[in-house]
Amino acid sequence: MAMNAARLRKIVVCKDLGSAMPLLTERDDLEVIRWTEDRPCDRAWLLENVVGASGIVVCFQDQVDRELVNAAGPSLRVVSTISVGYDHIDLKVMAEHKIQIGYTPDILTDAVADSAVMLALMASRRTGETTSFVKNNQWPVFNWMPFAFCGPQLSTTPFSPTRTVGFLGFGRIAHAVLARLAAFGITHCIYTPRPGAAPQPARDAQLQARHRLAALTPVDLPTLARASDVLFVLAPGGARTRHLVDAPFLRQMKATSVLVNNGRGSVVDSAALARALAEGWIWGAGLDVVDEEPEVTAAHPLVGEPRCVVIPHIGSATLETRAEMAGLTAQNVLAGVLGEPVPVALEYSALI
Amino acid sequence: MAMNAARLRKIVVCKDLGSAMPLLTERDDLEVIRWTEDRPCDRAWLLENVVGASGIVVCFQDQVDRELVNAAGPSLRVVSTISVGYDHIDLKVMAEHKIQIGYTPDILTDAVADSAVMLALMASRRTGETTSFVKNNQWPVFNWMPFAFCGPQLSTTPFSPTRTVGFLGFGRIAHAVLARLAAFGITHCIYTPRPGAAPQPARDAQLQARHRLAALTPVDLPTLARASDVLFVLAPGGARTRHLVDAPFLRQMKATSVLVNNGRGSVVDSAALARALAEGWIWGAGLDVVDEEPEVTAAHPLVGEPRCVVIPHIGSATLETRAEMAGLTAQNVLAGVLGEPVPVALEYSALI
Repeated sequence: MAMNAARLRKIVVCKDLGSAMPLLTERDDLEVIRWTEDRPCDRAWLLENVVGASGIVVCFQDQVDRELVNAAGPSLRVVSTISVGYDHIDLKVMAEHKIQIGYTPDILTDAVADSAVMLALMASRRTGETTSFVKNNQWPVFNWMPFAFCGPQLSTTPFSPTRTVGFLGFGRIAHAVLARLAAFGITHCIYTPRPGAAPQPARDAQLQARHRLAALTPVDLPTLARASDVLFVLAPGGARTRHLVDAPFLRQMKATSVLVNNGRGSVVDSAALARALAEGWIWGAGLDVVDEEPEVTAAHPLVGEPRCVVIPHIGSATLETRAEMAGLTAQNVLAGVLGEPVPVALEYSALI
Repeated sequence: MAMNAARLRKIVVCKDLGSAMPLLTERDDLEVIRWTEDRPCDRAWLLENVVGASGIVVCFQDQVDRELVNAAGPSLRVVSTISVGYDHIDLKVMAEHKIQIGYTPDILTDAVADSAVMLALMASRRTGETTSFVKNNQWPVFNWMPFAFCGPQLSTTPFSPTRTVGFLGFGRIAHAVLARLAAFGITHCIYTPRPGAAPQPARDAQLQARHRLAALTPVDLPTLARASDVLFVLAPGGARTRHLVDAPFLRQMKATSVLVNNGRGSVVDSAALARALAEGWIWGAGLDVVDEEPEVTAAHPLVGEPRCVVIPHIGSATLETRAEMAGLTAQNVLAGVLGEPVPVALEYSALI
């Protein structure tokens, strides 16, 4: 049954959703306009094509601001982002126009937790140096020594029976990391609560018992710096957390400690971290996010540090998780344009 | 009290034991001869200096054979190796001369298990490609796509709720890897028993219950190849296991599967694995050991494979574990030359 063109709802897709695209393109009640070039969606193209759209599919590279919303016009009902973050969306403008936001939290918890454990191991065990050693033809002339390429051990041993993991940001992903590390024999967990958040002794006691920890304790920032053997930054971005990990913080950390950032680049001062690594204040770092991203060139001081592993913000990049994220992003935009409840909507009124 | 030089027992140390050396050098009843150059111990130097030795400290790079034992003469009581492996020691010759062997098993279990999990994550999550991407200045022009740099997820998710880990070699290290992976939500464990080994249903049921697995089952080699999402090679070397992982084995594996070798390089056919990676028979590989080691040059086919992570046989290289290994190696040689029971001796009569 042919639909009247006037009744088609328009969706602009800034980022191809791969296997989830047929959810949108195979419907005859939608007009789907797709950006298909092999570079981030061009802003001028987007402003031109968004006119009269009911929904927009974006990723973190696409700015959703007043200009875009005005260009779309009053038809715009939903913005669906394939991300858990929403720094790229102007929440005030969305509120003014009563536009729903679909996003993809929770789904990526396990993928990010996996990558956080991976980065902790890589930074401890010096994979930047050891994989380069092999690629640079050095294995054939390796003079094996008991302490060559050694790093601090993530897991406990009978002779080194305690290990403390610290979390700056103690939400879902942190809990998933903790569950994994408990199996490595981690004995102590410390974290910094959000400023002003109520203590959660019952929740903490439950986590401590579940993972058979000797202790699980909220602490202040200096204690987090001093006591952590491995420290995971999993805090959200924004002004409140900017450069919480700075030179004074890093100077208090153990010389054998490892810093992992899977949260937001802005929480860690890159220059201070590069100095901490170069001067041995800490042992190593594993970064999925960097303050200056994506302007992280080969000349960036952290990229050149042998004890720093840097991957390009791909903590959630697994086949399973991204397929789920793409599917949910399509479902979110579809429900929004059809006037149905968006399956996973950001409740943003409290965040403005 | 000065000792008579004739009563000094001589120990030749082919490999410096770092922090454990004072256990030997600070005694006045020992003469300790040390190789100190920054290359593996020279054979001619060793044959010259071993004459009249009561004990020798070696690593896997030093061949302990008939020539060496004859050069030492009848004073030789103990060979202490800083390794769990003993491929470099001729057990028959040791038996003929009733020479004890000290070695360092068990201690390195946790360090190697950590590195095995790290390699599984690195191979799945494509760290060879992603770290090169950053170092090659590509992050600033990264066109983020939902499936860019994706790999199979190690952990289970609500939408992908089963995952099978396979073990070729199911000893202490495998059990330690399994304990860690259980926290990632692995649901099924399969392993190939040693040929001729009695089934261990009680042990298997206990492991299954402890790690809350849906199943833990001994299987044959083809099933191990076909069913494993991630496969750990942790078998000993030697003729019986040589190239068990060959082209026919690799052809049966899943296209999304990952192979990790922390056992012995000889178990995996390097040429077949390079082809499997180049042609996409499997997803990726993480190798701490390689058949041709240490002759693994930059031109080695596996070193050039983007989906292959290669580190230079450093699975046990943690500060904690290597300090323990060095200490035990010193204690083993000391006890042996003093005629006391060697704390951790290889019971090798059954292995000849």
